[in-house]
Amino acid sequence: MDHGTWIRNHFAPLSKSHGFVFTPAEEIQSRISRVRSKMGRAGIEALLVAQKMDLFYFSGTCQDGILYLPLEGDPLLLVKRELERAAVESPLPEVRGLSSFRSLPSAVREHSAKAPEVLGLEMDVLPANDYLRFASLFPGARLVDASEIIRRTRAVKSPFEIGLMAKAGEMGRQVYHYGKGILKEGMTEIEFGGLLESAAKALGHEGLLRVRSYNYEAYTWHVLSGVTGGIVSRSDSPMGGLGLSPAFPVGASTKAMKAHEPILVDFGICYQGYQADQTRMFSIGRMPKKFLDAYKACKEIHDAVLSEARPGADCQRLFINTVTLAEKLGYKDSYLGPPGLQTRFVGHGIGLELNEFPFLAMGPPYPLEAGMTFAVEPKIVFPGEGSVGLENTVVLREKGCEILTPLEQEIFEI
Amino acid sequence: MDHGTWIRNHFAPLSKSHGFVFTPAEEIQSRISRVRSKMGRAGIEALLVAQKMDLFYFSGTCQDGILYLPLEGDPLLLVKRELERAAVESPLPEVRGLSSFRSLPSAVREHSAKAPEVLGLEMDVLPANDYLRFASLFPGARLVDASEIIRRTRAVKSPFEIGLMAKAGEMGRQVYHYGKGILKEGMTEIEFGGLLESAAKALGHEGLLRVRSYNYEAYTWHVLSGVTGGIVSRSDSPMGGLGLSPAFPVGASTKAMKAHEPILVDFGICYQGYQADQTRMFSIGRMPKKFLDAYKACKEIHDAVLSEARPGADCQRLFINTVTLAEKLGYKDSYLGPPGLQTRFVGHGIGLELNEFPFLAMGPPYPLEAGMTFAVEPKIVFPGEGSVGLENTVVLREKGCEILTPLEQEIFEI
Repeated sequence: MDHGTWIRNHFAPLSKSHGFVFTPAEEIQSRISRVRSKMGRAGIEALLVAQKMDLFYFSGTCQDGILYLPLEGDPLLLVKRELERAAVESPLPEVRGLSSFRSLPSAVREHSAKAPEVLGLEMDVLPANDYLRFASLFPGARLVDASEIIRRTRAVKSPFEIGLMAKAGEMGRQVYHYGKGILKEGMTEIEFGGLLESAAKALGHEGLLRVRSYNYEAYTWHVLSGVTGGIVSRSDSPMGGLGLSPAFPVGASTKAMKAHEPILVDFGICYQGYQADQTRMFSIGRMPKKFLDAYKACKEIHDAVLSEARPGADCQRLFINTVTLAEKLGYKDSYLGPPGLQTRFVGHGIGLELNEFPFLAMGPPYPLEAGMTFAVEPKIVFPGEGSVGLENTVVLREKGCEILTPLEQEIFEI
Repeated sequence: MDHGTWIRNHFAPLSKSHGFVFTPAEEIQSRISRVRSKMGRAGIEALLVAQKMDLFYFSGTCQDGILYLPLEGDPLLLVKRELERAAVESPLPEVRGLSSFRSLPSAVREHSAKAPEVLGLEMDVLPANDYLRFASLFPGARLVDASEIIRRTRAVKSPFEIGLMAKAGEMGRQVYHYGKGILKEGMTEIEFGGLLESAAKALGHEGLLRVRSYNYEAYTWHVLSGVTGGIVSRSDSPMGGLGLSPAFPVGASTKAMKAHEPILVDFGICYQGYQADQTRMFSIGRMPKKFLDAYKACKEIHDAVLSEARPGADCQRLFINTVTLAEKLGYKDSYLGPPGLQTRFVGHGIGLELNEFPFLAMGPPYPLEAGMTFAVEPKIVFPGEGSVGLENTVVLREKGCEILTPLEQEIFEI
């Protein structure tokens, strides 16, 4: 049978019967309208959206292609592979094939009367060669970085998006409960991480976590026990863990987990592209008082952030307040990492990617808005000994934070 | 305890006792010497290596940093995070801290008497903003794309690298045998994929597969059964599968596997950064003759490639020969995908990444060399019905191909 015919006749019912959630047309319209108001203010006449999660956000599909999004008129989704499927997945009215980037200018000319003079690109992730190719394909246009306005648009979630994240949060609850049932002394960190991962997949977890970077990789098996919890690595995280090799120097290792060690499990879930992130502590028997106390401090800092976060609150101020509180609680030299290696954030925006806006971090003024979703993750690290932490994903409402990760906030002592 | 002191005293023995394989100094020296001869011919005076797998290849560490690699004199590894660990992992003599990219030019000036006039960058993956930042940091230098010479250097593997890939291949054999033991009717594709993944992780598989791209994602759970095997998606693969959502539209789905369906399992393994890729067919009871015959054709094409591949053989010629053979065998309209969507390669280089040189594909002349490693994967796709395929990873020796994936080449009929 012809593939296109088969897709047109069978793909929608087959995928829906296997749990696919398609992005509604009004959702896409609202996103496009929000980014356009930012484009207008920035003087950008059109966007070329190529990065897979931006493309998915504005089109409803992440088939291989590119979205031409002018300030006015219909957006044009050009698909290299696979067009028929993209046409089912995306509610956009104009979805066409694209044989190669060379034919992009003519496709744009056919679609829009006026060629854009200021063209916005995702210059934070678009490779240099692609950037130079776009410059030669659109010689009359000034190319500007539109990544910030795209990321600011994506930072504020709709009820549709929040619903998917809440589902991911609920899946996370089930995965941690499963973990409580299988953890035992002598199991290696990576075995435990692998079993959590397979349980999550059986629930519909998509396996990959996404991060906006060409060099940084997200993964779920961040299981650190005792000494490995005190090790910093390449990741911008208070503790990277030992990992499995110099080529993958983060996360779970082949170290066997022992009784009384603090076992930190930072496990994100992805459902229909939307992620929920959380961290809990496990132990086999009681962990030493030093770690129990540090965990209490993390809980206090976590609760303080959640109680202070309001629409209009400044992200840097929220972060600095946690540093002050950590010092007051006696953790100046262990909060968010060892001296010299302390991370400069206690929270990160989350949605389709793990490093979305806003960051509760040192940086320029960034006021919170209702609808923003972020993970709050105070952690305390003792090199050579271990680490503890607590993390939940929240959505900011007008009146404050609502937790999207409903798992109990306690140490899971086996 | 101070983190740096702890790392210096404890990291090497701890990591080695947990299976870490460090890249030997002579291995790094040989890689640097090989890329330098290509730099010399291309007129490149220095490389800035930032992409994580290139950095790992030339330095032995993938801590967050950048390698300044001049045509002559010591390379300079500058590490943002985490310096102490990088100093243990890398055998390079010059490993220093880097607070930010702004201090890169002064670090280079201190290290090398002469500023480079032609500076090579990984412009196939380096983001546009980083490219523009380097251009402003090194205003006297002409920036050129060095990705091709880096990739050509990496294409030819050393015995050390081939040994790690063979270990990954052996782990793959064990994972497929495990799969044979647990597959049963009614299990979903993603459940099966998740269990294979957790078994692989328990053997030391690093969980992530790497691909050189800002937009394309590798994953291991490519389990397609019956109808889902006939679906093409965003990936440059004969069949993408249904996947789990419009946001992750490739690989295993929640479809339950049924008796007599062809079940295609394409499962890569990563050990110490090095990958081995393989595909085998499973079925619960006998699959229909149409698929058995198509599998025989895949085996014949696979064997033909392996027998024709010799040092000096041209990659495009090898590919075209498979197309001719597939047509002769009656699979003109199903070989490597449905009409209009057929992929233009039957093999891909593999090592630290899944899309390394050489490609057995349409393209410019590319002669094979001894030491190259690649996966050969003829596949046949019937939309609406299913697909079959066979894949092995091989290393090219002077006398021909040696298979690195020792798993039996048969259909695993349960």
